[in-house]
Amino acid sequence: MNLANLTTSEFLEGIYANNVAIVSKAITIVESTKPEHRIIANEIIAGCISKKHDSIRIGITGVPGAGKSTFIEQFGGLLTGLGKKVAVLTVDPSSSRTKGSILGDKTRMEELVKNPNAYIRPSASGSSLGGVTRKTRESILILEAAGFNCILIETIGVGQSETAVHDMVDFFLLLKLAGAGDELQGIKRGIIEMADAIVITKADGDNIKRADFARMEFTRALHMFPPKENGWTPEVLTCSAIDNKGLEEIWQLIDRYCEDMKASGYFNANRQQQNENWLIQYLEQELLTEFYQHTKTKEMLPQLKKEVISGNISPFLAAEKLLKALKQS
Amino acid sequence: MNLANLTTSEFLEGIYANNVAIVSKAITIVESTKPEHRIIANEIIAGCISKKHDSIRIGITGVPGAGKSTFIEQFGGLLTGLGKKVAVLTVDPSSSRTKGSILGDKTRMEELVKNPNAYIRPSASGSSLGGVTRKTRESILILEAAGFNCILIETIGVGQSETAVHDMVDFFLLLKLAGAGDELQGIKRGIIEMADAIVITKADGDNIKRADFARMEFTRALHMFPPKENGWTPEVLTCSAIDNKGLEEIWQLIDRYCEDMKASGYFNANRQQQNENWLIQYLEQELLTEFYQHTKTKEMLPQLKKEVISGNISPFLAAEKLLKALKQS
Repeated sequence: MNLANLTTSEFLEGIYANNVAIVSKAITIVESTKPEHRIIANEIIAGCISKKHDSIRIGITGVPGAGKSTFIEQFGGLLTGLGKKVAVLTVDPSSSRTKGSILGDKTRMEELVKNPNAYIRPSASGSSLGGVTRKTRESILILEAAGFNCILIETIGVGQSETAVHDMVDFFLLLKLAGAGDELQGIKRGIIEMADAIVITKADGDNIKRADFARMEFTRALHMFPPKENGWTPEVLTCSAIDNKGLEEIWQLIDRYCEDMKASGYFNANRQQQNENWLIQYLEQELLTEFYQHTKTKEMLPQLKKEVISGNISPFLAAEKLLKALKQS
Repeated sequence: MNLANLTTSEFLEGIYANNVAIVSKAITIVESTKPEHRIIANEIIAGCISKKHDSIRIGITGVPGAGKSTFIEQFGGLLTGLGKKVAVLTVDPSSSRTKGSILGDKTRMEELVKNPNAYIRPSASGSSLGGVTRKTRESILILEAAGFNCILIETIGVGQSETAVHDMVDFFLLLKLAGAGDELQGIKRGIIEMADAIVITKADGDNIKRADFARMEFTRALHMFPPKENGWTPEVLTCSAIDNKGLEEIWQLIDRYCEDMKASGYFNANRQQQNENWLIQYLEQELLTEFYQHTKTKEMLPQLKKEVISGNISPFLAAEKLLKALKQS
């Protein structure tokens, strides 16, 4: 079959049948910026969204070196062992800079790559976070329609992408190395309060004591936070990929979370809210992109910014000047 | 003098001379939604922004009952005793609902109201957070031009307003009652990570032990956070308004913060960044308001939202439909 010329129904048939080559091609179409691809992409998504599947979307974040690849390799293996179908996506708007390391990650997940019940897709590329998140969200819909029921979404935890990922998953997991606190250096403020669970990685050998101490400290720290809207109390766990310890407990925790949240109605309400958020965010982002690309805006904004920064003009007056000029143009 | 018919230069003269009646009237003009007031408001702001003053803007947040009014009453008194001129503003977009309690607050600050070196302005009213923050930011400029050099901005810590306040101050203070954790209930997640200092209030009588314990716990918890971009380590202090204890230490901490941040250049860089943020936020907010008021948007959006929430249509496709219809209209 020549994948280059598939019709929408051929795409959908292939996706529904979990044909991984066609799933990959469909994601490539969704990621494409060509207008002719956009049309078929929208048709594919429309066909996928109507297929309802029971799935769990898990966000996994942590700074480089926190052990994300090793964790996903082993955690993914555990999940397929439980009969799940696992898909791994990465969100990294700056992937053009780090392409090497992401391909490297994929190679490092040697076992998971070979696993017939797992699918790994390196980062969507794109210059804007908005573009990347749209592509990721649409990829999730394709993967779920293809029968993948555990979607792991990886992000590197140092940029703007965590909030976006938090807004597209059911459960948000923060991976951390045990250590003297230096390892927090790269993590963006606010992420700790987003986490549904924190996992201290590499809890093996000489590190066990330190990891246990970190687990206790974080448990205390999380206790100081206001409770989450959904009533969930975030937990702190340790794990070791080398010793293959702690992974089942993490899955049990996530499973319990899903059960609780489905029982309370939060699980579904949250997904509906996320859908509404995507609509609004995408709308607003498109409108603002258009504004910033307007000739008049491009001409006036840099100078107005300078005057505002130097305190010569009120930010509000500067904004009014620009809006007035736009209306007249 | 009939304040109703002041010219711009009369306003500015009065403001520069710290004529409190004229300052109040100028803030009323800034808060007004009448177009003819907007013109003179812009002229007043232009005249105020050119006056450079050394000031500190302090955000104070805490849930109702955390002791904000009592704290501001005493802290304001301490500052005027040190020769400062203190202005208190409140930010509360929902003030129409809580007008009673805010006027009540003003009455409760009995001493500060009578203090000739202090000025208290109840919340700007307005339906949108954006509107309220513009008014508050412009009021700050007027107050600074009038020679007030300690601006205290109070917010109730339960809504969206804290991020807005955080983005208009130099120092962000979170007030908390010592207690069993219940008092966290109302606080929005993310606020703790914003705080430059946490103050445990009502540390007197039977509460002293509990307050000290809370101070220790929060100090430990803050230690688990990533360091702030500016290198500042948030501290946790206790205070008692009844025993008049701990207030000087709070001021010393803020003073040390200012010295450190001025020495590093962060203080000024942060204000410049805030100015730029105000420009961009205001621009974007105006553009989006216009969009949401568009007839076509009002007509199409509710139905599209419903379909997106029920999962019948992709959020992105829904957005594209609306944008296309807008372009054709």
